[in-house]
Amino acid sequence: MPSVEQTAIDPLKIAQMKTYLDCYPCFLRQALSAARRAGASTDQQRQILLDTMQELRSLPSEATPPVMAEGIHRLVRAHTSNPDPYREAKQEATQQALALIPGLMERVQKAVDPLETAVRIAIAGNIIDYGVAESYELDATLQRVLEQPFAIDDLPALREALDRVDSVLYLADNAGETVMDRVLIKAIDRPVTYVVKNGPIINDATREDAHAAGLGEVAEIVDNGSDAPGTLLDRCSADFRRRFEQASLIIAKGQANYETLSVSEAPLFFLLQAKCAIIARDLGVTAGSTVVKGPSGRT
Amino acid sequence: MPSVEQTAIDPLKIAQMKTYLDCYPCFLRQALSAARRAGASTDQQRQILLDTMQELRSLPSEATPPVMAEGIHRLVRAHTSNPDPYREAKQEATQQALALIPGLMERVQKAVDPLETAVRIAIAGNIIDYGVAESYELDATLQRVLEQPFAIDDLPALREALDRVDSVLYLADNAGETVMDRVLIKAIDRPVTYVVKNGPIINDATREDAHAAGLGEVAEIVDNGSDAPGTLLDRCSADFRRRFEQASLIIAKGQANYETLSVSEAPLFFLLQAKCAIIARDLGVTAGSTVVKGPSGRT
Repeated sequence: MPSVEQTAIDPLKIAQMKTYLDCYPCFLRQALSAARRAGASTDQQRQILLDTMQELRSLPSEATPPVMAEGIHRLVRAHTSNPDPYREAKQEATQQALALIPGLMERVQKAVDPLETAVRIAIAGNIIDYGVAESYELDATLQRVLEQPFAIDDLPALREALDRVDSVLYLADNAGETVMDRVLIKAIDRPVTYVVKNGPIINDATREDAHAAGLGEVAEIVDNGSDAPGTLLDRCSADFRRRFEQASLIIAKGQANYETLSVSEAPLFFLLQAKCAIIARDLGVTAGSTVVKGPSGRT
Repeated sequence: MPSVEQTAIDPLKIAQMKTYLDCYPCFLRQALSAARRAGASTDQQRQILLDTMQELRSLPSEATPPVMAEGIHRLVRAHTSNPDPYREAKQEATQQALALIPGLMERVQKAVDPLETAVRIAIAGNIIDYGVAESYELDATLQRVLEQPFAIDDLPALREALDRVDSVLYLADNAGETVMDRVLIKAIDRPVTYVVKNGPIINDATREDAHAAGLGEVAEIVDNGSDAPGTLLDRCSADFRRRFEQASLIIAKGQANYETLSVSEAPLFFLLQAKCAIIARDLGVTAGSTVVKGPSGRT
């Protein structure tokens, strides 16, 4: 099986994006938001904030944002006895996106460059993220992402890589975004394994969410064995790690996958919107940028 | 001395605005911002964040945002051995505002309603607030506040009150904003006592800042004996409390004065921009609104 990387690599040799202090206030905001979605009383909300601060204080300084998020959202779920605070939001996002499918598929079919259009649609879907904000404008985002230049444009390398491989490992991000991933997977026209989370975390897609978005029609759906945001390989199942190691091309959606895999040596292409200023800075782009980042640009 | 309130009142009977949980993430952001302004190293910044979370955990649930802010900024000053992290920002804000003085004075002189124009200018100056954001657009804000309708308009009551009193107690907010206060004080044309903080807290005005803005030309400058944001009467000096009790009209600038005095029965007029969503909600207005709120609208 050909690989997009010619040098010997160790895809499990992972160092993560540096943890930024600016994430601390953001996690407090996120904990409060999750508590409210889970139906917590004001007293419960306050206790969740206090426990979140205790959790943040107890974590080692090198803990990554996805590790912090994993602990905080576990805490919210336990406090509120609600296993999936974002369940309703995920279902709504999926239904909203599904309504767009016929128009998006037609747009790709008629495009001068169907792959580029499909990539842009998949990146536009990345706006559906309740980790970074409380709401999003899907139509406006689609319009913007379909038109604006890529801030990092490794689409030519992705196109070349796709021509050389006979399958793709696709790391999903959020429910609803899944629908736009489906548009890209259809355009890729290669066997795709679509990787979701093993359990609810924020509005990240699980098997249930992927099936509801119709991903079963275009890909094999597997989970990574973890309920942390992004891909924390040491939290993932042996089966997923084997797939990750053997993959000749991996498409990774969203900020959390970038946070957890940005310095991996695996043949990764990150497709994302730089929604928060911290990740934008790490990528060297402005917030709101559209990014296709392949292996060549990484160190 | 006439009073704008005819009923017997106890101006020291103070209950404060309810503390909102949304303030916790905001304070963490503010602590980090202050730490960086104070020149803290990354390790110091992290330690300040950890100690801020400890401080927030240890405060009683009824602690008001200004009480929280007082503790947090004291902590930053101690950690960094920097008694005034916002000193440079305050000086710059004052100089920037002073450059506008001739034009603003002329604008008031030529106005159909000089008092209204001066009130709007004083409220526009309230955008100079490093507690709620890292930067501000002074020119654009002036333009907006000079034109947009008041979301709460007790200007007629303020005008009437001014006609009836022979002096005004004026509770200042931020350095730089002081310059715009000077424009209003000149338009009021009554003896004014201008009240600043007793020591540095965020970019709130101290005696030094008030003098640099030329307030000495138009008012008697006193301090309230406290270095908390807003006006926490139990932290203030006996001298200030006496002035507060005896005042027949008090103009209070900015969000923190509203947070600390919103349910006071004193003859208060709050002049402010609702810069954060939490205070806007408390006021029943949208964020970004311009507010002149007198005693009649309060309970």
